[in-house]
Amino acid sequence: MSMQELSHDIMQLLEWLGYFGDDPEGGITRLLYSKEWLEAQKALEGWMKQEGFDVYFDEIGNLFGGLQGTKYQDETILTGSHVDTVRNGGLYDGQYGIVAGLLAVKYLKETYGQPLRNLQVVSMAEEEGSRFPYAFWGSKNIVGTAKREEVQNIADFDGIAFVDAMRECGFRFRDESAEIRRDLKAFVEIHIEQGSVLEKEGQSVGVVHSIVGQRRFTIEVNGEANHAGTTPMGYRKDAVQAASAMICDIINRAKQHGDPLVATVGKIEVKPNVVNVVPGHALFTLDVRHTEKSEIIQFTEEITASLKRIAEDMGVELNIDMWMDADPVPMDGRIVEVIERQCKEKGLNYRLMHSGAGHDSQILAELTPTAMIFVPSRDGISHNPAEYTEPHDLAEGVKALIGTLYKLAYQE
Amino acid sequence: MSMQELSHDIMQLLEWLGYFGDDPEGGITRLLYSKEWLEAQKALEGWMKQEGFDVYFDEIGNLFGGLQGTKYQDETILTGSHVDTVRNGGLYDGQYGIVAGLLAVKYLKETYGQPLRNLQVVSMAEEEGSRFPYAFWGSKNIVGTAKREEVQNIADFDGIAFVDAMRECGFRFRDESAEIRRDLKAFVEIHIEQGSVLEKEGQSVGVVHSIVGQRRFTIEVNGEANHAGTTPMGYRKDAVQAASAMICDIINRAKQHGDPLVATVGKIEVKPNVVNVVPGHALFTLDVRHTEKSEIIQFTEEITASLKRIAEDMGVELNIDMWMDADPVPMDGRIVEVIERQCKEKGLNYRLMHSGAGHDSQILAELTPTAMIFVPSRDGISHNPAEYTEPHDLAEGVKALIGTLYKLAYQE
Repeated sequence: MSMQELSHDIMQLLEWLGYFGDDPEGGITRLLYSKEWLEAQKALEGWMKQEGFDVYFDEIGNLFGGLQGTKYQDETILTGSHVDTVRNGGLYDGQYGIVAGLLAVKYLKETYGQPLRNLQVVSMAEEEGSRFPYAFWGSKNIVGTAKREEVQNIADFDGIAFVDAMRECGFRFRDESAEIRRDLKAFVEIHIEQGSVLEKEGQSVGVVHSIVGQRRFTIEVNGEANHAGTTPMGYRKDAVQAASAMICDIINRAKQHGDPLVATVGKIEVKPNVVNVVPGHALFTLDVRHTEKSEIIQFTEEITASLKRIAEDMGVELNIDMWMDADPVPMDGRIVEVIERQCKEKGLNYRLMHSGAGHDSQILAELTPTAMIFVPSRDGISHNPAEYTEPHDLAEGVKALIGTLYKLAYQE
Repeated sequence: MSMQELSHDIMQLLEWLGYFGDDPEGGITRLLYSKEWLEAQKALEGWMKQEGFDVYFDEIGNLFGGLQGTKYQDETILTGSHVDTVRNGGLYDGQYGIVAGLLAVKYLKETYGQPLRNLQVVSMAEEEGSRFPYAFWGSKNIVGTAKREEVQNIADFDGIAFVDAMRECGFRFRDESAEIRRDLKAFVEIHIEQGSVLEKEGQSVGVVHSIVGQRRFTIEVNGEANHAGTTPMGYRKDAVQAASAMICDIINRAKQHGDPLVATVGKIEVKPNVVNVVPGHALFTLDVRHTEKSEIIQFTEEITASLKRIAEDMGVELNIDMWMDADPVPMDGRIVEVIERQCKEKGLNYRLMHSGAGHDSQILAELTPTAMIFVPSRDGISHNPAEYTEPHDLAEGVKALIGTLYKLAYQE
């Protein structure tokens, strides 16, 4: 299989799959349990059947298909990603992981025949949380942590109940008393980076050793609203002034702390938010990520203390609310090593790196040894019709995946 | 007239006038050319007639009433303020200037009879710009700078045309070819401070020597939107980070510059404004005021240069748009002196000060020697039902006004 053929096959399959949910307003909109979503899953089912894969849906709509092992039939090597998209999403996020898995398994079957262990591709039902206020519905059902009561009463923006949308597509809740599958021996997910590290460093493949943990905060500053003309600077308790000082402090400390720590103030809300009133109220969010939990704790404690000092100096009230605290998820060392060796053997231009974004892999890692492969995202853009990865890099990623799956499923 | 009687009369008249536009949702809503507005003007007309004042409306609905001079009948001393309110305004803003004028002229008439010069109270039609997108409609018609074409095509939030609302009340456009009145020899406006300087300094009366000029800007920062997890700190062009640094810089420089300069960032808008995206776009407003034009120019030029440096350092694009540039208005030195001397003679606890807010006086000053008297605003609050001034201070202000009007209208 030449590089050009592989690139061509990947692009063709991506475009074919991207047709389901093709949005007149741009990109792909393929939300969980929508018509487009169901069509995509059925089309994938058809593709896999045609290739002679064993295919089945689980209760909630995760699609599995692949080859049976000749020797270890109670051991399965799994690859794949999520089939759902955000609204007006790109051609690569999620899709690429499925398409890459399909082509890798097809190639392995055509080249080496049956594997020793079962080799499966999964098209997971949902990861983005874009239709219903629930994310990782697909992977959490595989590992058995999704609970019926978490989605029983949720609905989408049009008021359609999760449960009704699921039933309409022909799916149902997992039997929570049934045992979780024990055959999974590895999960390897290939995904676009959704960042610009690989691009900036001029590399084609990332071997992910860790998915960052994150803490999210809402920080509220209460000062005193005053007339912008009649209140001398010395009399003010300006919430925007205090918030700005806090944001500068956070960013400076994050830079000082150094990679891989990132700290983001993504959202600001000011009240009353008019040109001629000294603002009495400001609210901002803080998103802190790192691959080491201890670093997250240390940094956020440092920030908390520092913000308190600033608030005190400026005579404003401070309220810090931490509403997310997710641990980092290290990838499985053995599988990371397998991937890295494949990259070396195949002469790929790769780097070890962490993932700053969340992925199904962080859920699967609870159940089975897991690792990820990244390919570059042009300009770091994702969740956008402008999402793009060079065909050459798409192919390099699939090569790494093929080598890895071969190693895991075909070798002793 | 005892202090207690005066306080009592002021409060009674304020409450009587405040009845017109009493808002079930709180405070007073008495917008230009509304039913409540017309009722208030008619009620004031009635009050003045009953007191034996000569009363008339001008074409657009400014209400004038007062005493004819015995000697200089082509010279008029004018006092008063605006009758309109913001939505859910307080009992004092504007109203107090009218009520104080009425009681002062009534007292002077009862005590000294006819003045040498005409002595008039004006209840000006409009100052706030709260119903239609036009402010100072009352005073600008007195000085002749309001132009028909500026309001010909404007409407309120319900789509009611300015012109229709005016006609409905029985008023019409001023004849722009007619001469502006030449009899005005002085305008003295008494008003609540709408700031907290008098309160904090424990003083009852402010003698205003100047109304600040102001420049308003919208400052736009364009960086690059990026994923909050996958974009290392060093790769970011974070618009919020840059804007925060700029805001800190502005506020610090304003404090360094010192009173009476004030600089306010009242409004911030961030895009996309979500917790997990490094913001690519931030916009904020800047309101700068000072009593000296040269200081405003110097400060805003300093700021502009500094923001450009910050933008360059941070690799973001900067766009600074100045959309308001109003000159400071010095009050008339002779009248300021008269007021100050009255404060001294009457033993009032006063201070010389500037106005950080705009007032009808800045318009009248174009036509006639003008000055203002301030009384304290509790907590600096205005444009709010919680607006409050101690009755004692209300009376002290009226005493200063009585003395000033006596000096200007009754003495050679």
